Amino acid sequence: MTPVLSQDNIFNYGDYVLIYLDRKRRILAKLEQNKRISSDKGVIIADNIVGKEKGSQIVTSLNIKAWALKPLLVDYIEKGIKRVTQVIYPKDLGFIIFMLGIESGARVLEAGVGSGNTTIVLAHFVKPTGHVYGYDNREDFLKIARNNIAKLGLENFVTLKYGDVRKGVDEKNLDAAVVDIPDPWEALNTIYNSLKPSAPVAFFIPSVQQLLKLYEALEDFKGFTDIRAFELILREYELSKTSIRPSTHIVGHTGFIMFARKIIKSL
Amino acid sequence: MTPVLSQDNIFNYGDYVLIYLDRKRRILAKLEQNKRISSDKGVIIADNIVGKEKGSQIVTSLNIKAWALKPLLVDYIEKGIKRVTQVIYPKDLGFIIFMLGIESGARVLEAGVGSGNTTIVLAHFVKPTGHVYGYDNREDFLKIARNNIAKLGLENFVTLKYGDVRKGVDEKNLDAAVVDIPDPWEALNTIYNSLKPSAPVAFFIPSVQQLLKLYEALEDFKGFTDIRAFELILREYELSKTSIRPSTHIVGHTGFIMFARKIIKSL
Amino acid sequence: MTPVLSQDNIFNYGDYVLIYLDRKRRILAKLEQNKRISSDKGVIIADNIVGKEKGSQIVTSLNIKAWALKPLLVDYIEKGIKRVTQVIYPKDLGFIIFMLGIESGARVLEAGVGSGNTTIVLAHFVKPTGHVYGYDNREDFLKIARNNIAKLGLENFVTLKYGDVRKGVDEKNLDAAVVDIPDPWEALNTIYNSLKPSAPVAFFIPSVQQLLKLYEALEDFKGFTDIRAFELILREYELSKTSIRPSTHIVGHTGFIMFARKIIKSL
Amino acid sequence: MTPVLSQDNIFNYGDYVLIYLDRKRRILAKLEQNKRISSDKGVIIADNIVGKEKGSQIVTSLNIKAWALKPLLVDYIEKGIKRVTQVIYPKDLGFIIFMLGIESGARVLEAGVGSGNTTIVLAHFVKPTGHVYGYDNREDFLKIARNNIAKLGLENFVTLKYGDVRKGVDEKNLDAAVVDIPDPWEALNTIYNSLKPSAPVAFFIPSVQQLLKLYEALEDFKGFTDIRAFELILREYELSKTSIRPSTHIVGHTGFIMFARKIIKSL
Repeated sequence: MTPVLSQDNIFNYGDYVLIYLDRKRRILAKLEQNKRISSDKGVIIADNIVGKEKGSQIVTSLNIKAWALKPLLVDYIEKGIKRVTQVIYPKDLGFIIFMLGIESGARVLEAGVGSGNTTIVLAHFVKPTGHVYGYDNREDFLKIARNNIAKLGLENFVTLKYGDVRKGVDEKNLDAAVVDIPDPWEALNTIYNSLKPSAPVAFFIPSVQQLLKLYEALEDFKGFTDIRAFELILREYELSKTSIRPSTHIVGHTGFIMFARKIIKSL
Repeated sequence: MTPVLSQDNIFNYGDYVLIYLDRKRRILAKLEQNKRISSDKGVIIADNIVGKEKGSQIVTSLNIKAWALKPLLVDYIEKGIKRVTQVIYPKDLGFIIFMLGIESGARVLEAGVGSGNTTIVLAHFVKPTGHVYGYDNREDFLKIARNNIAKLGLENFVTLKYGDVRKGVDEKNLDAAVVDIPDPWEALNTIYNSLKPSAPVAFFIPSVQQLLKLYEALEDFKGFTDIRAFELILREYELSKTSIRPSTHIVGHTGFIMFARKIIKSL
Repeated sequence: MTPVLSQDNIFNYGDYVLIYLDRKRRILAKLEQNKRISSDKGVIIADNIVGKEKGSQIVTSLNIKAWALKPLLVDYIEKGIKRVTQVIYPKDLGFIIFMLGIESGARVLEAGVGSGNTTIVLAHFVKPTGHVYGYDNREDFLKIARNNIAKLGLENFVTLKYGDVRKGVDEKNLDAAVVDIPDPWEALNTIYNSLKPSAPVAFFIPSVQQLLKLYEALEDFKGFTDIRAFELILREYELSKTSIRPSTHIVGHTGFIMFARKIIKSL
Repeated sequence: MTPVLSQDNIFNYGDYVLIYLDRKRRILAKLEQNKRISSDKGVIIADNIVGKEKGSQIVTSLNIKAWALKPLLVDYIEKGIKRVTQVIYPKDLGFIIFMLGIESGARVLEAGVGSGNTTIVLAHFVKPTGHVYGYDNREDFLKIARNNIAKLGLENFVTLKYGDVRKGVDEKNLDAAVVDIPDPWEALNTIYNSLKPSAPVAFFIPSVQQLLKLYEALEDFKGFTDIRAFELILREYELSKTSIRPSTHIVGHTGFIMFARKIIKSL
C-alpha cells in the first residue's frame, strides 16, 4: 500500500531539506534554483530534489546514495543555526520542556537568549498561540538569534528584547521561564515577578559553584519551592550487525538543570 | 510588585491541586466539597484551598506547612495516573518528544498504549489541533488509559483503538510514531504504511536482545534510515545547604530508545 | 583433564566458605563443627562442606542446589564485615588502589578507619611485607575494625591507632595515603609530613561542598600537585537468556575521589 | 618537619621521571646522561633532575615551572607503554584486580596479551612471589609487550607465550584469569582447566553481541557460576577555583566486564 501523495509531502523551492549521507554526514540546505549543495561525498543539485517526494533516495555527483529528508526540529538545532554561544543540548531541552509542561499557547520567559537555540525550541512547542519573550544584554547575540529563528519561520511566536533581565522583565503572569545566564541568583526577583503564581522555572547551570550559589539564593529568596536539580547523561550506541556498543566518546557534562516553582511570598 | 490576580490563578472546585509537603511528599488531588485529603503529615480540607491563589501556603491538621500548587504535566504523570504497565519515564519522554519534533497540530501513532502514560504526554504536545491514535490489544489496559486521559481532560485529542498494531493501522500520513510493544520488529510494515514519507518513529525497548533484534529488522526492512539508539541516565541531586550530592539510589536503566525515519522504498 | 587436587583446594574446619545460592543469596560462613548455616532456601550443615573440593555443589535441607565457593576479597567486604560507618565501595576501592599504585611492600596511611573496610583492602594489597597505619578518633570504631580485620587474618599487616589524624601522624616516609574523614582540609599538613616526597594521596568525599572546600585547601596548601577529581558510576547488568539489561536500580553516587601528589614545598 | 631524605627519594640515572607541567602535559622519561626531554613548554635537561629529591620543582628552557615526580603505575600505563592494541582502561583494571582478589603471590592467566598493558598491571599486583602467564597468538604483539614489561622491570614476574589460548593452556591450578580475546566463548574449556577450583575469571568484552554470546556460552558450559556483568562510567571533574564541573568530553564506553567463578562440573 503506497502512502497517499499529498503536496505537503513533495519538496518545493524554499523548503529546507536534510540530506542524509550517513550517520556523521548530514547536511541541512534550503532548496533554491541552481543551488549546488556540497558534501565530501560529492555535489547534490537542489533542482533535482524539488518535485521529489520527501524521504526519496538521491545520488551525489560521485554516485553516492543519500536520502532527502524533511528536517525535524533537532536537525535545525544541530545543523541549521549559527552558534555563537554555548547552547543547551537536545537531551536537556527535551527534559526542560517536559518538566515545565510547556504547551501550545503558553507564554514563556527566556532569560539569556544567546544564539536563540532554546528560543527556537520553546517557540516550536508554544506555537501557534503561545509566545516566547527572550531577553539578552548582548545586541550582537540577538541579531544572530533573530536570523536563526527566522530560518524556521518562528519569528511570529517570539519577541526578542535587548535588556538586562536582572534589572526587569516587562511581562507579567507568564506560564514558565527558562534561565540560562551566568548569575541567575541576581535575577530571582525579576523572574519571580514575571511569573504566574505556581508557575515553574528551569535554570541551566554549568558549574558546581553556580549550582551551590543558586541553590542557596533560591532558599534565601523564599519565593520558590520544590527546588530540584538534575543532570542527564546521554549515551548513543554505535550500531552495526556485528557490533552494537555504547559510543566510546560521549558528552559527559553540559550542565545541571535546576527547577523551582513560584509560591506566594508571605507579607 | 504583586502579580495581577486573575481568575485563572485561583483554585476552584473541580481543579486538581498538587499539595507539596516536601520533596518526597507530594499529593495530587481533585478539589471537591467536603473532601478530606490525607497525608502522613495530617489532613488537608479541600474547601480550604478553593478560593486561594495558586502557590499559596496551607497548613495540615497537624499544623504542618505545605504549598498548594497548580499541577504540571509531570505531576499528573507521576502522581495522577493509575499504572498497570511499565511506563516510559519523563527523562525519556522529553527526549522522544524533542527528537520526533512533536508539535501542536501533529497527528501521531502510538503503538502500545498500556496505562496511557505516553498517550497523555503526546496529547499534551499535539493539542489543541493535533491528535493521537493509540492502539493496544488489551481492552483492560485501554479502559484504564481512557480514565487516566480523562483526568487531564485530554480525551478530545486521543482516539484509542482496541487492536493489534502488527496486523494493521487504519490511519495514513501520520507525522510520527511512538512504539512501545514487546516485539516492534513485527510491526514495521504497518507502522511504515501509517507514516508520512520522511516521518520519524521512536521505539522504546528494555533489553539488549530486543535492541539487537529490532536493529537487524530495521536494517533488513529497508524502509527506514537514520537509525540511532540512545540511553539516558538521569541523576537527581540531593540538595541542602550543608550537603549537595548526587542521589545515592537512582534508576539506572528504563530502556533504550531507537529512532528511525521513513524513506521511500525502492520498487 | 581433572585439576590436580591439592590440599589447598579442599575445605577444612576454620576456613570461610561462600555459599552461593543465587545472585541475591550469598552467605559467608566459617566452617565449624556442628554448625548449621541458615538461608531462606534451607539449612546447610558445615560438616558436610568440610572435605569437599572448593567449588563443589551442595544441597540445602530443602534440597536446593548451591555452590560452596572459596571467598574472594570482595565477598569478605560485602558479606564478612560488620559495618558501622558508610564504607567506600568496591568500584571506588579498585580505582583508588590502582591510581595510588599500591603494591606488595608498600607502607600506607589510612586516615579514618571506620569499620576497617578500606583497611582490609589496603592490607590485602600490601601484604606480606607492607603495612597499613590506620587512624581513627573513635575507639568504638577501631574495636569493630580490629575484629573485621582479624576475620581475614590480616592483623599482622595493620597497625590501628586511636588518635586524631589532623593533630599528627607518627609515621614518616609513607608510600601513599587514603583519607576518608569529614574535614580532610584540616589534615593536609599532617598527611603531607607523613608521606614520601612525590607520594600520592586519595581523598574520598561525599558532597559537592566538601569537594569545593578540599580543592581550594589543596591549592592554597601548595604541598601537592596533579590534583584530580573523579567519580565512578557502576552499572550491573541483569542477565538471562531472554533479557539482558542494565539493572533498574543502581547506586548513583557514593562519593567523589580526589587524588594529589606530594611535592617539595619551596622554603 | 622535613621528611628524612633517603637515597630512595633522590632521582638517579636510570630512573624514570614523570615531568608534570599541567594536567594535560605530563611526560614520562628515563633519566640518561645528556638527554634533552622535549615538551611544548620548553626543554628539560635530564642531568638537572638527577640528584634532586623526588617531587622537586624544575624549570624548562622557557622558564616554565614543572614538577619532577616519581612515576606511578598509572603513569607507566598512560604514558610509558607502546600501544598496538585497544587496552583496558585504569577504571576497569582497578575493578578487575579488586573483584578477582588478585594479591601478591597469585598465579594468574592472561588470555590475550596485546600490548602488555594488563600484563603489567597484573604483574604489579602479584609481585614479588606471584606470576603472570600471558598468551597471545600474535608474535609481533608479544615482542612489543615484552619491551613494555621490561620498561617497568617486571619481566621476572611474567611468562609470555606464543600460542592460541583456545587450543590449550599449559598451567594448572591458577588463582585467577583475565581474558581479553575477541571470542572468549571458544576458550572456556582451556581456561576452566587451567584454574583452581572456585577460582575467578574476568572477561573484557566491547560489544553487546559478544556480551550475549559469552553469557550464553557460560551458561551452557556449566563449569562456572556467579556470572555477573558490569560496566563502569568514569567522570573526571575539571577543577578551578571559579568553576568545578564534570568534563565535557568523556570516554563513555570501553567495554563490559563479565565475571564468573569455576565450579566442579558434575560428571
